[in-house]
Amino acid sequence: VPVTEKALIAQVRRWANVSHNAALHTGIGDDCAVLRIPPVLRNKTKGKGSQDILITTDFSLEGIHFRREWHPPESAGHRCLARGLSDIAAMGGIPVAAFLSLALPRDISPKWVQSFARGLLKLARKHGVTLAGGDTAQSPGGILADIVVLGAVPKGKAILRSQALPGDNLYVSGELGGSAAAVGFMQEERRKKPNLREYPRHFFPEPRIEVGRFLRENNLASAMIDTSDGLSTDLAHICEESGVGAEIDSDLIPLALVGKSSGPTDLQLALHGGEDYELLFTAPRSKKVPAIIAGVPVTRIGRITRRRQIYLVDASGRRSKLHAQGWEHFRR
Amino acid sequence: VPVTEKALIAQVRRWANVSHNAALHTGIGDDCAVLRIPPVLRNKTKGKGSQDILITTDFSLEGIHFRREWHPPESAGHRCLARGLSDIAAMGGIPVAAFLSLALPRDISPKWVQSFARGLLKLARKHGVTLAGGDTAQSPGGILADIVVLGAVPKGKAILRSQALPGDNLYVSGELGGSAAAVGFMQEERRKKPNLREYPRHFFPEPRIEVGRFLRENNLASAMIDTSDGLSTDLAHICEESGVGAEIDSDLIPLALVGKSSGPTDLQLALHGGEDYELLFTAPRSKKVPAIIAGVPVTRIGRITRRRQIYLVDASGRRSKLHAQGWEHFRR
Repeated sequence: VPVTEKALIAQVRRWANVSHNAALHTGIGDDCAVLRIPPVLRNKTKGKGSQDILITTDFSLEGIHFRREWHPPESAGHRCLARGLSDIAAMGGIPVAAFLSLALPRDISPKWVQSFARGLLKLARKHGVTLAGGDTAQSPGGILADIVVLGAVPKGKAILRSQALPGDNLYVSGELGGSAAAVGFMQEERRKKPNLREYPRHFFPEPRIEVGRFLRENNLASAMIDTSDGLSTDLAHICEESGVGAEIDSDLIPLALVGKSSGPTDLQLALHGGEDYELLFTAPRSKKVPAIIAGVPVTRIGRITRRRQIYLVDASGRRSKLHAQGWEHFRR
Repeated sequence: VPVTEKALIAQVRRWANVSHNAALHTGIGDDCAVLRIPPVLRNKTKGKGSQDILITTDFSLEGIHFRREWHPPESAGHRCLARGLSDIAAMGGIPVAAFLSLALPRDISPKWVQSFARGLLKLARKHGVTLAGGDTAQSPGGILADIVVLGAVPKGKAILRSQALPGDNLYVSGELGGSAAAVGFMQEERRKKPNLREYPRHFFPEPRIEVGRFLRENNLASAMIDTSDGLSTDLAHICEESGVGAEIDSDLIPLALVGKSSGPTDLQLALHGGEDYELLFTAPRSKKVPAIIAGVPVTRIGRITRRRQIYLVDASGRRSKLHAQGWEHFRR
């Protein structure tokens, strides 16, 4: 059954109707969505207008960011929205609304689309996010999604990448390398489908909204980024934007437990594997950062230095330069 | 020369640096863009927070919305942003910021990308719009762009599709059918490149921001939409959302002057051809709508009726049902 563009639009409308919040004044069905964003502050003493708007956009392209033979549609939909939510988390923001642009090839089954939407909307509901609009089109090839997430943060309180200072401690939430380990498994064992529950961080990554919010509300983090490109690359972004360097203690890095045996993943995957969607942040030494925030372990893994280089320090104290290796999804 | 993702990101950053406005607090180079939208109102007596945010997203996909052999890159870039700006115009809004997600195939020339950006940024500057962020990726096939435009409008003043009332007059800005005429020319004369200047409304459509703003500021329009899908389809959207019908006087429709001879285009193209990006709006009979707004002719072409049907009325008074034919870009 071919999915026509009109049917798709009707479908997106229905999705949107099941996910509403106070921010959305007029949603799908007009030229634009009209948003009236409510104050995110718990105490409203600072009055209206005292917040900044956060916006992030992320592609989820078949063959680049997901594969139909590897990712069930619920996972593809979940990951599509998670990418955007994680960017909001990395600013310490509160997500408010999402906009989904979705181009589908003529041969896609309506069932696939519905499951994709189910995965996306389940995550949206969990975070109180409205699906407020988007666009639909025929795709010239493959499934093409682009997610826009809009959030809010008290005025001037967004946690940027650029404010890390020498002497700050370096922290990461959760564990690293789990998502890349799943990709490795799928590339090596071509015939076998992975057990989704053995690789939850890859198939259903949970954006760290509450961790980011806690850090912002308690004024703990000086700089923050989410680990979408991998620790080595994302730390390089913080260092570059802040004009600083860093040292990581390799034995402090929390290695994800993956696979049937729940064994720790390889250090190389934890250093360079992307798409863990954890929060990597810096905090002044004077700040006391809890070991667990909103149920998520938070680990100190190193420190920010004046010298603009990134080093890995092993248990014996030996230092080696850590090069940002980037993360090219499945094109390794 | 292959364009790497990293080079692309650097390029988008450079583009963004040349187009800045007061709304952008922190742009490309962090997880999200941080926007602090200034009041759009000329008199600020109503204070802060008295505005709604408008958001619209639109795909521009190679092979669906443009073709590399037909559209010079400047035109593809201009049209990409024009689609979003036109949606803001159709709400009576002021555009503030744009976000470009761009996926490119490995074989694309940097020159193409730069010319695409030049076309897009020229239109952005004209309307005071900041390119505030976006995403870049390798494309699995073809050039894939998704534009997000964010705008503002005084609180509760967005002109919706749903407020047309029986008895209202029906108006359209500019001329209709010009864009579809260009597509017709290109489909028929496969060998010949069209003369861009003979089809300006197709290659460089000017979004009607000032017309929409005037109508909103003077409280003239009861309902409004832009003619992206074609008069018959877009009028059907207004009628459906408003629960009304309409009559169009066929000899009142302003036919675009196209081609070498600048002759009027076919009535069928004016009725059903999409992508003219004009404003179609309704106004109560008591309102005096100027014949020219912001230099653009505005023509009364019919009226809204209680009966939920859309009719075309010819010069002799003969009525025929007008069916929405939709507009499938180049897939006709």
